[in-house]
Amino acid sequence: MTLINHKFLLAARPVGMPKRSDWTFVEEPIAEPKEGELLVQVLYISLDPAMRMWLNDVRSYIPPVGIGELMRALGVGIVTASRNPRFAAGDHVSGSFGVQEHALTDGRGVATVDTKTAPLPKYLSALGMPGMTAYFGLLDTGQPKPGETVVVSAAAGAVGSLVGQIAKITNCSVVGIAGGAEKCSYIVHELGFDAAIDYKSEDVKQSLQKHCPKGIDVYFDNVGGTILEAALSNLARGARVVICGAISQYNNTGPMAGPRNYMSLLTNRATMKGMLVFDYVDRYPQAKAEMAGWMAAGKLKSREDIVEGLETFPETLLKLFKGENLGKLILKVG
Amino acid sequence: MTLINHKFLLAARPVGMPKRSDWTFVEEPIAEPKEGELLVQVLYISLDPAMRMWLNDVRSYIPPVGIGELMRALGVGIVTASRNPRFAAGDHVSGSFGVQEHALTDGRGVATVDTKTAPLPKYLSALGMPGMTAYFGLLDTGQPKPGETVVVSAAAGAVGSLVGQIAKITNCSVVGIAGGAEKCSYIVHELGFDAAIDYKSEDVKQSLQKHCPKGIDVYFDNVGGTILEAALSNLARGARVVICGAISQYNNTGPMAGPRNYMSLLTNRATMKGMLVFDYVDRYPQAKAEMAGWMAAGKLKSREDIVEGLETFPETLLKLFKGENLGKLILKVG
Repeated sequence: MTLINHKFLLAARPVGMPKRSDWTFVEEPIAEPKEGELLVQVLYISLDPAMRMWLNDVRSYIPPVGIGELMRALGVGIVTASRNPRFAAGDHVSGSFGVQEHALTDGRGVATVDTKTAPLPKYLSALGMPGMTAYFGLLDTGQPKPGETVVVSAAAGAVGSLVGQIAKITNCSVVGIAGGAEKCSYIVHELGFDAAIDYKSEDVKQSLQKHCPKGIDVYFDNVGGTILEAALSNLARGARVVICGAISQYNNTGPMAGPRNYMSLLTNRATMKGMLVFDYVDRYPQAKAEMAGWMAAGKLKSREDIVEGLETFPETLLKLFKGENLGKLILKVG
Repeated sequence: MTLINHKFLLAARPVGMPKRSDWTFVEEPIAEPKEGELLVQVLYISLDPAMRMWLNDVRSYIPPVGIGELMRALGVGIVTASRNPRFAAGDHVSGSFGVQEHALTDGRGVATVDTKTAPLPKYLSALGMPGMTAYFGLLDTGQPKPGETVVVSAAAGAVGSLVGQIAKITNCSVVGIAGGAEKCSYIVHELGFDAAIDYKSEDVKQSLQKHCPKGIDVYFDNVGGTILEAALSNLARGARVVICGAISQYNNTGPMAGPRNYMSLLTNRATMKGMLVFDYVDRYPQAKAEMAGWMAAGKLKSREDIVEGLETFPETLLKLFKGENLGKLILKVG
């Protein structure tokens, strides 16, 4: 009995926002696992801002996705067949399975996950890459101290919402920047941020001045552009700026906007530092245990924005860049 | 007998390059020292890129110079009269005396200097603020390790020339970026840099790639603009970017240029950090002693570009922004 797989390949390098015609949707049989391999039925696929960068013909921290190649994506699923001694049929697993229904893998980078600790989608949010990014980006790169002021952009997103809550657990004062009243209400009333700034209706620079009278000690940036500049204009002396992403710039057809007021780093003796979650892989287990503990204690919440249907991938991905998702954007395979 | 003083006051906030009409040259009598005060005959005045920033109506790390106020400047001179117990007539001193012939001061921020250790102008270069900036900016902020690659811009200037030499003393490989063949020859053949890049005749990004095959570990930036971007394009993993100045941008009539490729900080897990020399004032004595030792041992050279005539101040200052000085630009009071 031949298993039929559906998957998305990159057809063309997008200019600006990725269009449906930049993808090829393919139906083809998938082979049985050979010795050492396992077959995974992918149940949930993680949609992340970084995906847009993987589509450009530029080597950043990993090579770009090649034309004609399977689109890279993290996912969670269930093992349906295994000839790898580390995995058995029925195991729940996470890994870089790509945008497809079934993944044949040699098990490298694949980990089993425990659905008794948390439902499967949480392993793509708080207990997955966004959770690890928030945890290490804030605590390790940002180095917040109790009583300090932490500001995070894309604050209702997968990473930002966790950054703010971890900052609250660290006893910081936390201000989130998000787009629209719903997101702003969510981060304050559901997640316990001290304040929210709606970048769609407020002057972010002025609002930061109001909400951060002593200046920003840690700014966790997911967006770049004018919001990064607004934060740089309001740094406290010795501030740490964590560069995690720049979603506002990823679909530019020209170069990104550089922060024109970066000399604020000098005036304020501040540091701007880039972080990549993969550097912390050795410390994931400890971090995941701590995050799971906070979740169990009700101190850390995550919301998943789950869209059903593999075939909607090209359009669903764009929700990230249009600011339409609240929490972690996930594609549920039909 | 009344002492006549000449001085430059700020007449108007410059737009772009400061013009002579932005200054007022004033002749007026200066008072005798009162109890606690001393009178200094200013012999040499330090001309520094940062002066341009002090002319803008923006508070950075110090308030701007006000319209109608004496232009702020560091200087060295000789005490001509003193009613302050810390100083005696005949002492050589350094301090923030302003662009004038005689300074009446209460002694705050004034230090005696020893002309047996080094000639007076050296206290405005290697043993003064540029020396301390190079020492702490490189060693404390840049944290170079032996064998690493250090790149410095404005490499034939007051700070850059010292940064490169201190990096050599630290056993780093050192590449300087400077404008023109004379400066490039100077830093390699006189100062011992491993390589020089002439930004006026070379593609800096490509030349950095050639001279730094393993990437840049420490980039010490004095210039900003496209040279900062070229450096960011060539960072090694874990690189430190020291933000010390942005002279290419100081006379912009619009905003500064921000580094459009700042996401290189993420890709390379790199740090960009601002530094201000005044934060290290407690450690100046130890640093000056070490610098003087290196100078005595022939390991550290500094050159001063001395222009005579207080009245030439408006034009002489512009040499900095036109890249016409080699080494520390100093105004000798006639």
